[in-house]
Amino acid sequence: MTTITMDTLKDEYYLIRKYTEQLAEPLEIEDFVVQADTHVSPVKWHLAHTTWFFETFILKKFLSNYLVFHQNYNYLFNSYYESVGSFYPQKARGLISRPTVSETFSYRKHVDEHILSLLENRNYIENEQLRQLIEIGLNHEQQHQELLLTDLKYNFSFNPLHPVYIANDTFGTSHSTDLSFIEIKGGLIEIGNDAKGFSFDNEGPRHKKWLNTYRLANRPVTNGEYIQFMEDEGYTKPEYWLSDGWNAVQGYQWECPQYWEKHDGQWYAFTLSGLVPIDEHAPVSHISFYEADAYARWAGKRLPTEEEWEHALRHTPIEGNFAERGYFQPIAENIGPHYPFSKGFGDVWEWTRSSYSPYPRNKPLKGALGEYNAKFMANQIVLRGGSCATPHSHIRLTYRNFFYPQMRWQFSGLRLADDVE
Amino acid sequence: MTTITMDTLKDEYYLIRKYTEQLAEPLEIEDFVVQADTHVSPVKWHLAHTTWFFETFILKKFLSNYLVFHQNYNYLFNSYYESVGSFYPQKARGLISRPTVSETFSYRKHVDEHILSLLENRNYIENEQLRQLIEIGLNHEQQHQELLLTDLKYNFSFNPLHPVYIANDTFGTSHSTDLSFIEIKGGLIEIGNDAKGFSFDNEGPRHKKWLNTYRLANRPVTNGEYIQFMEDEGYTKPEYWLSDGWNAVQGYQWECPQYWEKHDGQWYAFTLSGLVPIDEHAPVSHISFYEADAYARWAGKRLPTEEEWEHALRHTPIEGNFAERGYFQPIAENIGPHYPFSKGFGDVWEWTRSSYSPYPRNKPLKGALGEYNAKFMANQIVLRGGSCATPHSHIRLTYRNFFYPQMRWQFSGLRLADDVE
Amino acid sequence: MTTITMDTLKDEYYLIRKYTEQLAEPLEIEDFVVQADTHVSPVKWHLAHTTWFFETFILKKFLSNYLVFHQNYNYLFNSYYESVGSFYPQKARGLISRPTVSETFSYRKHVDEHILSLLENRNYIENEQLRQLIEIGLNHEQQHQELLLTDLKYNFSFNPLHPVYIANDTFGTSHSTDLSFIEIKGGLIEIGNDAKGFSFDNEGPRHKKWLNTYRLANRPVTNGEYIQFMEDEGYTKPEYWLSDGWNAVQGYQWECPQYWEKHDGQWYAFTLSGLVPIDEHAPVSHISFYEADAYARWAGKRLPTEEEWEHALRHTPIEGNFAERGYFQPIAENIGPHYPFSKGFGDVWEWTRSSYSPYPRNKPLKGALGEYNAKFMANQIVLRGGSCATPHSHIRLTYRNFFYPQMRWQFSGLRLADDVE
Amino acid sequence: MTTITMDTLKDEYYLIRKYTEQLAEPLEIEDFVVQADTHVSPVKWHLAHTTWFFETFILKKFLSNYLVFHQNYNYLFNSYYESVGSFYPQKARGLISRPTVSETFSYRKHVDEHILSLLENRNYIENEQLRQLIEIGLNHEQQHQELLLTDLKYNFSFNPLHPVYIANDTFGTSHSTDLSFIEIKGGLIEIGNDAKGFSFDNEGPRHKKWLNTYRLANRPVTNGEYIQFMEDEGYTKPEYWLSDGWNAVQGYQWECPQYWEKHDGQWYAFTLSGLVPIDEHAPVSHISFYEADAYARWAGKRLPTEEEWEHALRHTPIEGNFAERGYFQPIAENIGPHYPFSKGFGDVWEWTRSSYSPYPRNKPLKGALGEYNAKFMANQIVLRGGSCATPHSHIRLTYRNFFYPQMRWQFSGLRLADDVE
Repeated sequence: MTTITMDTLKDEYYLIRKYTEQLAEPLEIEDFVVQADTHVSPVKWHLAHTTWFFETFILKKFLSNYLVFHQNYNYLFNSYYESVGSFYPQKARGLISRPTVSETFSYRKHVDEHILSLLENRNYIENEQLRQLIEIGLNHEQQHQELLLTDLKYNFSFNPLHPVYIANDTFGTSHSTDLSFIEIKGGLIEIGNDAKGFSFDNEGPRHKKWLNTYRLANRPVTNGEYIQFMEDEGYTKPEYWLSDGWNAVQGYQWECPQYWEKHDGQWYAFTLSGLVPIDEHAPVSHISFYEADAYARWAGKRLPTEEEWEHALRHTPIEGNFAERGYFQPIAENIGPHYPFSKGFGDVWEWTRSSYSPYPRNKPLKGALGEYNAKFMANQIVLRGGSCATPHSHIRLTYRNFFYPQMRWQFSGLRLADDVE
Repeated sequence: MTTITMDTLKDEYYLIRKYTEQLAEPLEIEDFVVQADTHVSPVKWHLAHTTWFFETFILKKFLSNYLVFHQNYNYLFNSYYESVGSFYPQKARGLISRPTVSETFSYRKHVDEHILSLLENRNYIENEQLRQLIEIGLNHEQQHQELLLTDLKYNFSFNPLHPVYIANDTFGTSHSTDLSFIEIKGGLIEIGNDAKGFSFDNEGPRHKKWLNTYRLANRPVTNGEYIQFMEDEGYTKPEYWLSDGWNAVQGYQWECPQYWEKHDGQWYAFTLSGLVPIDEHAPVSHISFYEADAYARWAGKRLPTEEEWEHALRHTPIEGNFAERGYFQPIAENIGPHYPFSKGFGDVWEWTRSSYSPYPRNKPLKGALGEYNAKFMANQIVLRGGSCATPHSHIRLTYRNFFYPQMRWQFSGLRLADDVE
Repeated sequence: MTTITMDTLKDEYYLIRKYTEQLAEPLEIEDFVVQADTHVSPVKWHLAHTTWFFETFILKKFLSNYLVFHQNYNYLFNSYYESVGSFYPQKARGLISRPTVSETFSYRKHVDEHILSLLENRNYIENEQLRQLIEIGLNHEQQHQELLLTDLKYNFSFNPLHPVYIANDTFGTSHSTDLSFIEIKGGLIEIGNDAKGFSFDNEGPRHKKWLNTYRLANRPVTNGEYIQFMEDEGYTKPEYWLSDGWNAVQGYQWECPQYWEKHDGQWYAFTLSGLVPIDEHAPVSHISFYEADAYARWAGKRLPTEEEWEHALRHTPIEGNFAERGYFQPIAENIGPHYPFSKGFGDVWEWTRSSYSPYPRNKPLKGALGEYNAKFMANQIVLRGGSCATPHSHIRLTYRNFFYPQMRWQFSGLRLADDVE
Repeated sequence: MTTITMDTLKDEYYLIRKYTEQLAEPLEIEDFVVQADTHVSPVKWHLAHTTWFFETFILKKFLSNYLVFHQNYNYLFNSYYESVGSFYPQKARGLISRPTVSETFSYRKHVDEHILSLLENRNYIENEQLRQLIEIGLNHEQQHQELLLTDLKYNFSFNPLHPVYIANDTFGTSHSTDLSFIEIKGGLIEIGNDAKGFSFDNEGPRHKKWLNTYRLANRPVTNGEYIQFMEDEGYTKPEYWLSDGWNAVQGYQWECPQYWEKHDGQWYAFTLSGLVPIDEHAPVSHISFYEADAYARWAGKRLPTEEEWEHALRHTPIEGNFAERGYFQPIAENIGPHYPFSKGFGDVWEWTRSSYSPYPRNKPLKGALGEYNAKFMANQIVLRGGSCATPHSHIRLTYRNFFYPQMRWQFSGLRLADDVE
């Protein structure tokens, strides 16, 4: 998000915290509890963990007499901050029926009241450190808004009743722009974030990179194009796949993107609006890095590096199919003004060819918050641009998302790139 | 239970079905959903599965126009009856937030109304087959009443908040009878069930067995006695253990019965009333067959066979600490009249030395209900006598319960036996 | 084996130890090393472990100045005797290239020389304890002769080159006796071993059992009969299977006995003589208890209990297709005199319906040798009669072999039984 | 290696193939067979696989009438070339006792004779494609010479007898250079291989990189320095570790480098010369990327990127402790002329901070040999400089080795780097 000033801090806090709860409104109490795999969390846990974040990093720090809401919550709702103490096993979050949903909302209320009261306290009204921590906490909250949606989708997908989170009869018009490639001149360029506005500690510092001249697709790969890869037996031909990708195809028995099912010759996908027919013009999503990479090789192209992606998209306005649109599903329609690159922001996170590594001279935050991003810089791949489940104000040109290459539960797709010889 | 006559069928149905729901009353909605391991089920699943049992084996059979409550419930709530169709994976029952608890109670109401209406239908009023199926269904319901409690305890035990199902300040007086052994003359005896009353198909036919003269303890082993075994380093000495038991000790890192924790030199156990100090005079429970067998070897004794147990207890009235008592925890106090063998019924299931095998000339029920008991006759061990979570009317002298030898989540303990040379 | 007297002790020792080495003669050095799974051992390990047995239980005991051949061999070649010290992990025996085969034979030579010298020592010439320990050691050696063969077959089966241990063009004539059932009158009978001759500690004491009148098949089930079960889709119909058996079928993807392969519509089996066509008249082997049990249910019969088997076979002479015959494969031909029951001994171990449990008043041997049999009395099933890989002199009417119900690498088959109503 | 000309092709072929066999000379036949884990292979397999490489990519291609030595060897000795056909499971290579070692040497002889004969054939004497394929084959052979040694060490390490491959009483003098950091000016530099000499397809093309000014240590981290990290409880403090690294520490229970054991307060390491005391002045080896990274963070430094490493070492002559030295163990002594950076080549592979990714515009080889390197470009980390088990002529400045970050069985260590602010 753009920097939050002191003036708007309270409003932003209120609105962003409230949006999390709005996202949970369509749910039944039972839906808050389940966790289908280690890498996803129950809705209830997201509600509590984001609250714990404010309690731990702000209330405990700034309010000397602050009493924690519950002495066990640090253990239950710390995610992975080793320096803040031990934590409940991630894989077992779905075994915890208590605190109840109602108690969890009380926890939120308790912490929100203390934060808002703190923000009205004269002693802290110009406290820049407080402002920065609130800002991080709100960006953190937004990340969990997206996770709340993608985890919910994952959890629902194990239910043969195909639960509907929010009914959607239509996902906009269905036509996609023709595919074309735009040439971008190479040279010594700069990427990364040095700006005054908020960014995570993994986005900077701004630094030089040498790029060869390259070409980047005007839009992401569509479902229809991906079906061609499938029909060309892309999933059974090892020549398109990285070795670890081929092992994943065989180990997981992948034959199509996650959530896809074929009925009577027609592909359907489970969505947050239930089971719907595939829109061939919408961007393909719920594919792993391995599938994105294999598709690109099949297409005779390659994935872009993160520096190529960032450099090419630097003039593209951040408009698109974000969470606020309410689709929670990539769509064919192109939202926003016409620019060379469409759908760079929103719809699907785009896998790059870049491993998630520290930028030159990168410095993680000091203290526990240094664990936020830096310790994950191994074995993960950078994705760019945000998705249909990302809050609009959360994304930036320089934003680096990262997941393990086999992960498919995010709205993750790809955009092709190519060399210029 | 004793045979239910036509006259009492409706009342019994109503009361037993209602008791299941009463057991669920103290729970929060969230508590109905979780499943901590494959061998336990969510409370919600128990409520639905027992209902499915009546729908499948009675309503579908007797009501020609019966429409199932929901077309997917046969898949969701069939447990393991292969001949009734495929079923949802047992290990994933905790991933299913829908149907909600409220919808599950509607399902119960729907089926109950149809059953009760069927029982008032003149055409069926003297139908013996119907009576027998209701009787099986109610015994099945009672088994799941016990499982509801033991599974709930297991699921709660993963929660560091130590949820309390039902508060209990006291578990009766705390003194146990002195241990003694009663000699029972051997010879050609009979065990098993041929009586007119209800019994499961694994309890018969009544058949002859030759027994040597033997001795059986007057009561189960207590917590205090078991602590002596622990303090004598029983868990670290392989000479007391069966080979598979020793592997279990090391693989699971067992050091005490399930649910036990030591704080400041005092043993506590997690119970359905929260964490409470161990009562040394109460029967030890939540031990595996391997632990029971190792304890017996350490004590210089052995476990009784199921024929020894049944023959010895044949004159003991079925009184004791059952579910209706509301403790849901083995107690020191001896409930009922004074007989040579105390606590033979209630408190804890007693591991025998007998593998669960078919009795000579045993015939399983015909059709799907033949899968109820017979197909589990491998790798399991017979337990006798019922526990503090068993409904009183459910138990019989000839009742054969069975679990895998490593299982500990039931209220399972032991009674010593010995040879007479 | 029948009791070995003092007079023949040296000769028996020499011959039995030598036979082990003769069994290893056709092998290449490389064949001595490999281990394809935890439950099998390398040939080299069998040669060393049986030697360790004599060194540990006899030489260390009787020779006060005895120096062990190598200080690490107790760790390397102790199998599972906890009371003799820790031991190398069973699953890793195939990782040990040293001691070499040549060094292993030196170890045998060293121990053999000391044993034979001990047997000539006047002080021990009438020592009954020594005689008994030699006798156990030689029976132990014979068990490992059988395991050497079955483990070798298992290990070879992973090699696409289909190694031939010993060439065999023919396995005798190929016709089987017609199947018939022989009725045996029930009553109070006795089984088990009290005789003066050698028996293992799990075979006694002789004790009473009540039997109903029953019928037992005159011969084991043949390959041809078993193929009918397969062609009737026995492996895909859950109604024939125990629950754990059905899980095994699906988990292991069983579709036929172990070592079978179908080529051009003809079934073949990998044998110690390479890949050979199935002989429909030979007893089926390499099936698990679950498959034996499912076959019996499909055939409308059942497996016999071990007491039924022993009682029925009590007059049958111990003749048959044993290891010395050199086939190492069950055959159609009936070896030995004509008796009601053919192939009761040799050819295939016959799965019974009996769990491996202690006989009434059974007492394991004192000390470490008490671990030989007793600690395995859980989760295993009794097999009777010996196989084509069992040395002739090793088997007895009362002999109780035992394996886990899913095991298939032994020459294990079945004989049908039935109730008489 | 430097380019092999037509003139020397035959000699090089002969010498390199012979060196492989020389490396196997000290071994017993049994040592050729074992495989302790999936990522290592039996010595026998290395001997056969390298031979299969020449047979498959050269003899089958150039000799029209060539008959393969054995029809099953393509299945048995293809490693991972999907386009050449299916292959025997990697994890089961240690189950294959046949072909014997002797047969494997016959296979080598057969192929060598055909290759040498082909190289004398006038029709091919100036064939550049043949020359290139031989060159690749010989570099491939050298890689397996190193693997033969590291796999042997790994396999031997499971043997409590601590087998000695080759006796070594001394590993040179024991003193290390003082640690210092050398500043290297940044700017637009070039790395990668465009030279005429041989290089693998993953080393090019040569391309520009922007570097900030940085500092690089004059030598690798020593055992003594690493012990300080251990004594400062580096293995128990999560703040030094990447998240995946911390999981590895706990999952594998790492407390020291692989092969280290502590006896009476002194650290020892298992080496190819048996168990020897740690030399505090020798470079630390057998550590994972995670340990290298954690050490660097503990030391307040970081790992270099591969471009920093290559740029800094570009003037350093390729001298050092390579395989030919016969130590097969990193040593304290500095071999070769005095240069700013010592031990850049030989002793230990140095973990960099760079994920193994394709260089810009990189093109893998066409056909099956394109699988050699390119398909592994995910989840692996680049190491540089060669080790004490690498043949001297095999290494280059631009050489990119790669392993998964948790791997420790190679001679892998680290050299520290630092930013210049």
